[in-house]
Amino acid sequence: MMKDLLWKNITRLREQSPLVHNITNYVVMNNTANALLSAGASPIMAHAHPEMEAMMNICQALVVNIGTLDEYWVTSMKKAATQANQLQKPWVLDPVGAGATPYRDEVLADLLKLKPTIIRGNASEIMALAKHNTTPTKGVDSSAESNEAVAAAKFLIENYPTTVCISGETDIIINHEKEIHLSNGNPLMAKITGMGCSATALVAAFSAIIKDKAEAVTSAMALLGVAGELAAKESKGPGSLQLNILDKLHNMTEAEFTSTLKIEMKRG
Amino acid sequence: MMKDLLWKNITRLREQSPLVHNITNYVVMNNTANALLSAGASPIMAHAHPEMEAMMNICQALVVNIGTLDEYWVTSMKKAATQANQLQKPWVLDPVGAGATPYRDEVLADLLKLKPTIIRGNASEIMALAKHNTTPTKGVDSSAESNEAVAAAKFLIENYPTTVCISGETDIIINHEKEIHLSNGNPLMAKITGMGCSATALVAAFSAIIKDKAEAVTSAMALLGVAGELAAKESKGPGSLQLNILDKLHNMTEAEFTSTLKIEMKRG
Amino acid sequence: MMKDLLWKNITRLREQSPLVHNITNYVVMNNTANALLSAGASPIMAHAHPEMEAMMNICQALVVNIGTLDEYWVTSMKKAATQANQLQKPWVLDPVGAGATPYRDEVLADLLKLKPTIIRGNASEIMALAKHNTTPTKGVDSSAESNEAVAAAKFLIENYPTTVCISGETDIIINHEKEIHLSNGNPLMAKITGMGCSATALVAAFSAIIKDKAEAVTSAMALLGVAGELAAKESKGPGSLQLNILDKLHNMTEAEFTSTLKIEMKRG
Repeated sequence: MMKDLLWKNITRLREQSPLVHNITNYVVMNNTANALLSAGASPIMAHAHPEMEAMMNICQALVVNIGTLDEYWVTSMKKAATQANQLQKPWVLDPVGAGATPYRDEVLADLLKLKPTIIRGNASEIMALAKHNTTPTKGVDSSAESNEAVAAAKFLIENYPTTVCISGETDIIINHEKEIHLSNGNPLMAKITGMGCSATALVAAFSAIIKDKAEAVTSAMALLGVAGELAAKESKGPGSLQLNILDKLHNMTEAEFTSTLKIEMKRG
Repeated sequence: MMKDLLWKNITRLREQSPLVHNITNYVVMNNTANALLSAGASPIMAHAHPEMEAMMNICQALVVNIGTLDEYWVTSMKKAATQANQLQKPWVLDPVGAGATPYRDEVLADLLKLKPTIIRGNASEIMALAKHNTTPTKGVDSSAESNEAVAAAKFLIENYPTTVCISGETDIIINHEKEIHLSNGNPLMAKITGMGCSATALVAAFSAIIKDKAEAVTSAMALLGVAGELAAKESKGPGSLQLNILDKLHNMTEAEFTSTLKIEMKRG
Repeated sequence: MMKDLLWKNITRLREQSPLVHNITNYVVMNNTANALLSAGASPIMAHAHPEMEAMMNICQALVVNIGTLDEYWVTSMKKAATQANQLQKPWVLDPVGAGATPYRDEVLADLLKLKPTIIRGNASEIMALAKHNTTPTKGVDSSAESNEAVAAAKFLIENYPTTVCISGETDIIINHEKEIHLSNGNPLMAKITGMGCSATALVAAFSAIIKDKAEAVTSAMALLGVAGELAAKESKGPGSLQLNILDKLHNMTEAEFTSTLKIEMKRG
């Protein structure tokens, strides 16, 4: 049932080709744009202050990825996110390197105040985001990282109106209504820069066409996880994997998707 | 005859390896540089204000691509284009996203005043550029997009001393002397980010070594179109297509080129 | 003996995965990050002034590559290099385009004053760097480029406490204690943008885990040269070569490495 729904969403993305505004980092701009195109969406990358509002007006979703942030770009991010909120368009925060420097944490605190529709990061980023922006509670099992990240995600959804995705060996999508676990992918994906950033961009693309945000995030993460898992089978290393993933995002069939997807509805 | 001439130009590019200064967008810098290298040219990417004149002095052509423009970069573009004019070196304008925001249109209006030697864009960009910068005339058939784009190109060449290339399923090269149509390529090329930007960079490279600008543009578009068409035959998706195009730009033979090229001289 | 030591270093890089801070150019950020990941290191790219010190605190080595420099980025470079010195962490200077413009040469003069642990460039960059920053002596054989570059490298190591790597058909690693020549690679590598920048990043990664800097540079250059040479055998052009190198950095075996490496200890 859920598999059918997710595949239908993947098909809809190819048909509707939503326009996604990306304020993202220099390292991944090229593969992020290519991942969006391969999946059927349309990317725009822009950051000039005088066009942030106008750009948001014509796009259907926004990515804010702080990977290579600086003062100018942070202002761009805030302008675009504010306009996205104004227009009730979804925006997705990718807190790259959260916890690495005080500056990142300050910027992330400001961005959180602008209420991202969705937050996607790895376990350590989600934990850093929660640690810096909520009052830590007792009882968090610091010895079990995935449990701790789930606790951090719960802090975030309690304090902000958002849906959180913790990506990793198991992708965990969590909000007040749902908790969904996905177990696709391949360890070699961690040897390609910007896989997480591509995930965030795909999350934004699906959030543009799907109202239920947990479902939107799940569609994106399922598509990328299955693509990565299938692509890894025919890859000799990270170089060939990168292009095989783009190929697979483009040419994946329903049979491939439904026979490969490993999904578990924990709640909702 | 024309095929022989174009192939000779492709060979000359590999031999002469002109130095091309690129002020282009972050998304495509890597593949633009690689496309230039694969075709035999030498890329330089720079934007610092204190070195724009000095850089133009040592380069043979300039690309101005506004994809990820901001205030600092716009100044870089104007400095480099002004110096190119001063030295009578060709410069090519790629009006990425023309019409998307008022800021882009204002910047493009300023850049047009600096008289680009060549303008390359897709149909909607060329139409937006003409709409914003010329008085629209009656009689434009708005129901037929390619006709409308040709009309827009004609506006531009009437108002500015330039050669226009509308790229798409058919690439149309047009100036006062000539109109040439090319029909190579593959729809999958639209699923790779920055194919148009690579086209623009190749146009600049050929314009550095060929006096007749319609011929220079045609050489570039023919090379890329044929490379894309041949590469698509051995590609499973956009990821493999991207690298196969680079390979083909590098290893294309005369037989492959002349047997694949579809060219029509409409005028001149 | 030396071959065993270099292979042990390559294995150690995969195990220890040092964190490398890269202030590098837009063109190569993606492939630099991927080269580091493929070889087993961990890349960070950042440039915001407020986080340069904090970022250097958590990284084990720094790359300063001036390819697409501007005023803001030059300040970032100086902040990070100063902090690297403060913490006695190695930093590597890649003088991209040295000699191309007066601005580059001025910036490089400032960066040299901050005493890079290692400098890696091609022959013309090393010569431009020496010409601009030392008093030229007589006796330099200007008719033999590689000899001239070695003379330039010797000027640099006499005037600055550094190790110099001149990369090219033969890679020459030179400091007060040692001179080592490596003769791997393939001419097609020159048709991929940023191969030198990837080399510099790998040099930084090895310098983070190896005390003897000539040995660190040799490990990096040997790994990349052998990877390029092996990858070229199965590549049809620059596009496939780029990804095959990433694959080979990741999956190279000891047998491949030791049977392919061509190394000559000239001194030390």
